[in-house]
Amino acid sequence: MPISLKDIAASLGAETLGDASLLVDRLAEPLEAREGDLALAVVPKFSEHLKASAARAAVVWQGADLSELGLDGAIVAPRGRLAMAVLTRLMDDEPSFPNGPDIHPMSAIDPSAVIGKGARIGAFVSIGPGTVIGDNATLHAGVRIGANVRIGSGFTAQMGAAIGGDGFSFTTDGPSNVERAVRSRPGVPIEPMDGAWHRIHSLGGVEIGDNVEIGANSTVDAGTIRATRIGNGCKIDNLVQVGHNVILGEDCLLCAQAAIAGSSVLGARVILGGKSGVADNLTIGRDVVAGGGAIVLADVADGIFVSGHPAQPTHEYRAGLKALRRLIKR
Amino acid sequence: MPISLKDIAASLGAETLGDASLLVDRLAEPLEAREGDLALAVVPKFSEHLKASAARAAVVWQGADLSELGLDGAIVAPRGRLAMAVLTRLMDDEPSFPNGPDIHPMSAIDPSAVIGKGARIGAFVSIGPGTVIGDNATLHAGVRIGANVRIGSGFTAQMGAAIGGDGFSFTTDGPSNVERAVRSRPGVPIEPMDGAWHRIHSLGGVEIGDNVEIGANSTVDAGTIRATRIGNGCKIDNLVQVGHNVILGEDCLLCAQAAIAGSSVLGARVILGGKSGVADNLTIGRDVVAGGGAIVLADVADGIFVSGHPAQPTHEYRAGLKALRRLIKR
Amino acid sequence: MPISLKDIAASLGAETLGDASLLVDRLAEPLEAREGDLALAVVPKFSEHLKASAARAAVVWQGADLSELGLDGAIVAPRGRLAMAVLTRLMDDEPSFPNGPDIHPMSAIDPSAVIGKGARIGAFVSIGPGTVIGDNATLHAGVRIGANVRIGSGFTAQMGAAIGGDGFSFTTDGPSNVERAVRSRPGVPIEPMDGAWHRIHSLGGVEIGDNVEIGANSTVDAGTIRATRIGNGCKIDNLVQVGHNVILGEDCLLCAQAAIAGSSVLGARVILGGKSGVADNLTIGRDVVAGGGAIVLADVADGIFVSGHPAQPTHEYRAGLKALRRLIKR
Repeated sequence: MPISLKDIAASLGAETLGDASLLVDRLAEPLEAREGDLALAVVPKFSEHLKASAARAAVVWQGADLSELGLDGAIVAPRGRLAMAVLTRLMDDEPSFPNGPDIHPMSAIDPSAVIGKGARIGAFVSIGPGTVIGDNATLHAGVRIGANVRIGSGFTAQMGAAIGGDGFSFTTDGPSNVERAVRSRPGVPIEPMDGAWHRIHSLGGVEIGDNVEIGANSTVDAGTIRATRIGNGCKIDNLVQVGHNVILGEDCLLCAQAAIAGSSVLGARVILGGKSGVADNLTIGRDVVAGGGAIVLADVADGIFVSGHPAQPTHEYRAGLKALRRLIKR
Repeated sequence: MPISLKDIAASLGAETLGDASLLVDRLAEPLEAREGDLALAVVPKFSEHLKASAARAAVVWQGADLSELGLDGAIVAPRGRLAMAVLTRLMDDEPSFPNGPDIHPMSAIDPSAVIGKGARIGAFVSIGPGTVIGDNATLHAGVRIGANVRIGSGFTAQMGAAIGGDGFSFTTDGPSNVERAVRSRPGVPIEPMDGAWHRIHSLGGVEIGDNVEIGANSTVDAGTIRATRIGNGCKIDNLVQVGHNVILGEDCLLCAQAAIAGSSVLGARVILGGKSGVADNLTIGRDVVAGGGAIVLADVADGIFVSGHPAQPTHEYRAGLKALRRLIKR
Repeated sequence: MPISLKDIAASLGAETLGDASLLVDRLAEPLEAREGDLALAVVPKFSEHLKASAARAAVVWQGADLSELGLDGAIVAPRGRLAMAVLTRLMDDEPSFPNGPDIHPMSAIDPSAVIGKGARIGAFVSIGPGTVIGDNATLHAGVRIGANVRIGSGFTAQMGAAIGGDGFSFTTDGPSNVERAVRSRPGVPIEPMDGAWHRIHSLGGVEIGDNVEIGANSTVDAGTIRATRIGNGCKIDNLVQVGHNVILGEDCLLCAQAAIAGSSVLGARVILGGKSGVADNLTIGRDVVAGGGAIVLADVADGIFVSGHPAQPTHEYRAGLKALRRLIKR
């Protein structure tokens, strides 16, 4: 839907230059912009690109000269960090959700499930018995929500996310190979473990707060006797694993392929970088940040930035890399 | 379905205290327990939680005083390691499987597939031609099973598992960049590789033993000319990759996001920790344990506990970390 | 469908021995081969296996003696590297795609999507509005393709692949914990971050070239204002993540559980080993090879083979491991 520069600028709290009534219907990089696009060129290094561009409207830097740049109208780039969030929201006519009915006829919602107002439910979504979902949920195609899952308002699940499966919780009759490994001594192989794996059932379901997003093909397992919990405002990327009994504080951010093993507890605003992992039964404080690929094998106190395998405070991790480089050169 | 303390105790081989006819229908942590729940408080440190609890029944430690704890009846915590497996099974009225028909009408089962007795097949499950599945299978919503997959009895697949896709097996006309990398010399960049990737087709399917479980959104690829094989009793967590031609011995346990590359062979009772990986064409012995995030790049003998990147025997891995810490302090 | 040794040999450019009119309909390892199979025994070490085999036809080494091996006919193993690609293609009667109509009735294709000729679309596939797919696409069961995705000819997606979901792109009002972590000093915990995460919408869709394959349950996210791009001939394994705005050159090969974070650009013929990762906003040259589990945290020049965590040129990575081993022994 076309929108005028004037209306965009108002939403951004920004100024316009030239013809503020110009209509645009797409954001574009300057070199790829067509007439009718709003080119993004927030710093002067893009001036040559703008001159070569077919765009007649752009977001430009303070002091840009429209006629020199071949533009009819412009928005002066706002200083706020949220500009891209506002701009992309304004220009999103929601093509990513299929047209048609709000609840796709080829979805499977258990009669005992309760879905709030304003839900958009894509094709091949399944929702299990006893599950309750708040208002304004968006469940993309192929999302699976199991039984006994309670979700707040403003929930988004990307394609193929699976929420509420059975936790990976098995026990053996005697000591398992995990325990034997921990007690094993150098040079003495572990003896064959007795017996088979017996399932501990998952009865606790999942509880998810408000304004949570879960990425494509990510998995969140049900708790054993109480719910696995995901706090308000958490954002979870694709292919992430959240194990049974995990508790995630508010506003955590888990990047692609991160994983949290069973029963670990994370404070608010924790950020796990891509491919990072947290072992089971750990306590991770508030505002902890784990770098990409960090493997967290021990508790982490509030506000610590950790990196490496095993994860350590980042300055120690870097000191180790440096020491090793010095050692090689000798 | 409510069950009496007496019946639960009989299944556990445990004693009761107080009123053994009390009915309970849910397990709960003491502080979250409602009347009608069976609170789990197996050690005395939970006594204050029990006193504050609404629960009238609990699993308690030997010698607990019911009246002091505000309980009407109790089960004395059994010593066996399997107690949680038995308790959670007893209290599981299977809410995780949708009500309704055993084979969901919105499933796609090829007419040539053969499914055993007692199957429960969720919404949007697909099963390919020539596939044979044994008795008492549970296939949760969105499970995909390809063509030519043979599965034993007691099989469980969590939501979104994909079994029997084509193996990732491609070849080039000349030496590929993998071979060029192995032969490359320091400071001499690899020259551009000739030609494109040609697919080697996957004709071998997958063979899975009895009592196997495969987690949500995990993937198991078909073999090239013989089947990829998963032994009896194996348990596989979420987002795990099992490559083409892999052979898994009995009772292996693969934790979340583990991966086994093509043609590797693992012995019985191997445990792969979360995020660990095994490179292609390796032989891993029986009762091997790989720690979380371990990257196994070479064969491992029977019964060895390995850790790190690259994986080494755990005592050597730890010696390396220790040596590095000493080095930093100098 | 049975095929004669003569016809197979013609496709391979290979010679036959004995009865070239023999028909075979399956490839097999010698010990598992049945009458009617073509046993693969390309080197003399398999001669005992062949003698014990029920197979009457085999692919054998130059100079093999048919009567001694108990064979009626044989194909002399060709030298070309593509032999397995040709053989498996010839013997593949495509059982991996369900019989029945080419477009499964239980699929959900938006009316505005355009699908080329020769498409095979499995059960529970969804395709969003505005998406265009070229000729001869094979979309296995449960593939999800979002809105505004443009795909070339010869495309294959394995079960559960999800293409075109929203990028994982969120911003905060003030500095986020990522920025705070980078600036943090040893021993000074990060202060609580202000505010919540605001979504930057994904408007750019995905562009995929010709002859691309994407593995089971892998995910490719849409770009922000321009498309995420995957070049001609790329092959992507299972459970791989390709983040928003990523550009992949031609003929790249990404092994299972690899990941590329947002906005990184990879040259042609890059190979990412299993479980390897590339951080965001990096530039990776042509013909770069990353070993299994490598975590790439900085740009990589053309033709470099990198390994380790963090990834370094492989000879430096090995020198580090060696230096550490010497250090332990002291």
